[in-house]
Amino acid sequence: MDRAEALERLAAARVGRFASITPDGRPHVVVVTFALVGYQLVHMIDQKPKSTRYLQRLQNVETLPVASMLVDHYDEDWSALWWVRVDGEVGIEKDGDLWWTARSRLKEKYRQYRNAPPSGPAIFLTIDRITAWEHG
Amino acid sequence: MDRAEALERLAAARVGRFASITPDGRPHVVVVTFALVGYQLVHMIDQKPKSTRYLQRLQNVETLPVASMLVDHYDEDWSALWWVRVDGEVGIEKDGDLWWTARSRLKEKYRQYRNAPPSGPAIFLTIDRITAWEHG
Repeated sequence: MDRAEALERLAAARVGRFASITPDGRPHVVVVTFALVGYQLVHMIDQKPKSTRYLQRLQNVETLPVASMLVDHYDEDWSALWWVRVDGEVGIEKDGDLWWTARSRLKEKYRQYRNAPPSGPAIFLTIDRITAWEHG
Repeated sequence: MDRAEALERLAAARVGRFASITPDGRPHVVVVTFALVGYQLVHMIDQKPKSTRYLQRLQNVETLPVASMLVDHYDEDWSALWWVRVDGEVGIEKDGDLWWTARSRLKEKYRQYRNAPPSGPAIFLTIDRITAWEHG
């Protein structure tokens, strides 16, 4: 899978798994809806019923601004498996142009957001490294 | 979702996303097939075409033996979403009774392993903490 194909699969994926590190040095992983905006993956804190996971994720990347996002495809036919992973630095936007762009892209991608767009902080993961695999 | 229900969903899940930390302190996340064995989640290095991700994962947990495994369900109807996450300590077995038990459970769960069972190290994640969420 080449880089263009990996980016296309990233852009199309409905969810990704976002891994970060807690302030006490533990791995942390959550499932997120996200959009590809330029060369960044963005997701936002939204209005879905919350638990402390949102706060934890935000606290993690505020303390250590690095993350890894995995998108994968599972099939019982293991010859159809593939995944794409992005590693990079994280930035947080709570308002401003980038925040509005993120929200707008998420609303375009997910009809579920159209009547209840996310209003919390936007978490941007810059694609510093992209790794992809598929069953050869 | 109560603990028993969370454990049942974990046991039934076909894949999980396993997050660990690299020796240089970066988050790392991979998709794995796994089985619930007693109070541990086990997965093994297998014969599927390899990339350095397997070595990376093993190196991570040898250096810092903690991990987080996420199992989740996505649906375009967001009222059907749920996830279960396990955090805990990691142990590695390269042979012996525990290794054989792990291999046997994985073969039971996945018919795909029956003719080509995994033969690499088994990575055990002890369930120190289980967190679950579903759309209320």
